[in-house]
Amino acid sequence: MKKGRLEAFSDGVIAIIITIMVLELHVPADGNIKDLVPVLPVLVTYALSFVNVGIYWNNHHHMLYAVEKINGTVLWGNLNLLFWLSLIPFVTAWMGEQHFTRWPVVLYGCVLIMCGIAYTILCRLLIRAAGPASPLAIALGKDWKGRLSTVLNIAAVFLAFLHPLLGLGVYVVVAIMWFIPDRRIERTMLPKEEGL
Amino acid sequence: MKKGRLEAFSDGVIAIIITIMVLELHVPADGNIKDLVPVLPVLVTYALSFVNVGIYWNNHHHMLYAVEKINGTVLWGNLNLLFWLSLIPFVTAWMGEQHFTRWPVVLYGCVLIMCGIAYTILCRLLIRAAGPASPLAIALGKDWKGRLSTVLNIAAVFLAFLHPLLGLGVYVVVAIMWFIPDRRIERTMLPKEEGL
Amino acid sequence: MKKGRLEAFSDGVIAIIITIMVLELHVPADGNIKDLVPVLPVLVTYALSFVNVGIYWNNHHHMLYAVEKINGTVLWGNLNLLFWLSLIPFVTAWMGEQHFTRWPVVLYGCVLIMCGIAYTILCRLLIRAAGPASPLAIALGKDWKGRLSTVLNIAAVFLAFLHPLLGLGVYVVVAIMWFIPDRRIERTMLPKEEGL
Amino acid sequence: MKKGRLEAFSDGVIAIIITIMVLELHVPADGNIKDLVPVLPVLVTYALSFVNVGIYWNNHHHMLYAVEKINGTVLWGNLNLLFWLSLIPFVTAWMGEQHFTRWPVVLYGCVLIMCGIAYTILCRLLIRAAGPASPLAIALGKDWKGRLSTVLNIAAVFLAFLHPLLGLGVYVVVAIMWFIPDRRIERTMLPKEEGL
Repeated sequence: MKKGRLEAFSDGVIAIIITIMVLELHVPADGNIKDLVPVLPVLVTYALSFVNVGIYWNNHHHMLYAVEKINGTVLWGNLNLLFWLSLIPFVTAWMGEQHFTRWPVVLYGCVLIMCGIAYTILCRLLIRAAGPASPLAIALGKDWKGRLSTVLNIAAVFLAFLHPLLGLGVYVVVAIMWFIPDRRIERTMLPKEEGL
Repeated sequence: MKKGRLEAFSDGVIAIIITIMVLELHVPADGNIKDLVPVLPVLVTYALSFVNVGIYWNNHHHMLYAVEKINGTVLWGNLNLLFWLSLIPFVTAWMGEQHFTRWPVVLYGCVLIMCGIAYTILCRLLIRAAGPASPLAIALGKDWKGRLSTVLNIAAVFLAFLHPLLGLGVYVVVAIMWFIPDRRIERTMLPKEEGL
Repeated sequence: MKKGRLEAFSDGVIAIIITIMVLELHVPADGNIKDLVPVLPVLVTYALSFVNVGIYWNNHHHMLYAVEKINGTVLWGNLNLLFWLSLIPFVTAWMGEQHFTRWPVVLYGCVLIMCGIAYTILCRLLIRAAGPASPLAIALGKDWKGRLSTVLNIAAVFLAFLHPLLGLGVYVVVAIMWFIPDRRIERTMLPKEEGL
Repeated sequence: MKKGRLEAFSDGVIAIIITIMVLELHVPADGNIKDLVPVLPVLVTYALSFVNVGIYWNNHHHMLYAVEKINGTVLWGNLNLLFWLSLIPFVTAWMGEQHFTRWPVVLYGCVLIMCGIAYTILCRLLIRAAGPASPLAIALGKDWKGRLSTVLNIAAVFLAFLHPLLGLGVYVVVAIMWFIPDRRIERTMLPKEEGL
């Protein structure tokens, strides 16, 4: 089975997720600069979620780039990831509109954790389809980066009970950590391609 | 006529259908955990519809994978399927917001039945374009799975008049039944490809 | 310049246009079957507009299929068509919500006329880029079908001043006329391809 | 790394940005022609933003057409551009609904400036990946057109403090300036391709 249409569909869904969040930036009823003030926290969460969804697209792109074979189970693993990603606009809007109070910040973290777990499942399904000696399996290795993110996000959810901004701070740190693109796959693929 | 652009357009429409449903998850006006309670039934229907639309994308993917030739009639058969799929966000929102009362559950089932019929029509049009000896025709055979789903969904609509949750239960059973991807096409295509 | 990305972008925009119209199907506040009655005219207009946008996608697909070269001017001609198509959700919602009163029906026709003109312009730009002896130029010939549609839609706008339903009836007739896919291009391309 | 999926994802996001703006064209509550009057300024801004986003898609298309290699940094530079473009629907709606008063016009210009800067950054990242002797680097040269636009948009923001319509006028002039597609890349690529 070819991966082309899986990529196209995922690109479509992720493109919509990343863009419809802007619909939650409600236009102020008045035209003064101070009317933008209540929009600011929504804009900040929007930027954070844009980066988070961008990270998933980026890593999804890298991961599937290293893959040659997919199967029916991978399709469902991918839809599972897209489902959790599709909840990001909802929690983004809640967190932004409630100005980073406790429960919205906790729920935001829970959705991030579920996205991380769904990504790991998809990753395992792809490795299972490709075999343990495949470039993807070698490139990802123990996937400490994915595991660390999930651990940090779980910690962030608990920290949010102490103070919501502590949780938010950890989400930002995790995002920055992923911001540096995953060169593991590029590195493993490169010699193979040059060898051709 | 090439099938590439038909796939791309369908992917786009289905990606939007599956994602805009999340816009019906209205953000609670307050920031407490109990404010999420009224969102829960909407979330449950969203998940059910996400799986249902995912099933159609999945099967659409498999079906067109086995196809080589399309024609103008197929384009219209495909648009017909997309039209009925595009009503799913509407009935999902109604069923979720009305907390699974009778008529929304009935209408949800009617739209599912129409999607099933439209899918069968598209399937027949593709087989007619490809010929009765084509891989697609052999792979689908009598399509008992599609027929069974339609019969079950019709039963579900009647059961919903007894009690809406009975109907809902059947929708869930039908979704689980399709969850297992359609290996018929993979199985028929495989030997042919290996033979090349 | 390759036409691939032009097709992909147009597919994306048309897919969104055809799908966001469903967001205007506002979910009834109550859960009875009679609450669906005010939704019916919106659903009818939605179906009409779905078919109209589907026709444009279909013909766009056929037209670009017959094209090999595009240039910068074609990109703008294409964006012009997409702009007018993007107004269809707006006039669809207005016509549906106002239950087919005069001005919404007139405006709907005006947007259809502008779409038709924009389509003709794009068609001429493509022929100019491809040359008068190109398959596209031969396939479209005098384009009586496009001209007839525009004439009928102009007539429909005037008829709508007599009675809105007269105008609406003509829109439906024009849609049915295009429903039959444009075999002119398929016919002209076929011998060329078989000859290869 | 292949550029195909970067193009597909960007096309998706830009297609959504250009189309969801139409959702801000709120349907009048009544059905008379005079009810369209308050929609007109929103329609005018919509058209301006449609052209502006169209310009970015057009130039993005040309720019990536001249590129062969991309890397992880380019992915982020591209997401940065998409982020700023995604704010255009928000400022478009504000400017249209506030009928071109000062602050909305100023903010519109600020977002255009940020888009311009993000585009320049992406351009530099692509040239750095391709090398100073690459077709892209030669085609863009000193990029006076990009620089001039940014200078004009900065001027427009200051002019908007004198009178909002002065700023708006400059936005229109900048759009017209870009309307003429960027033939620099077509010109540079052409001999190379013909030479093959």
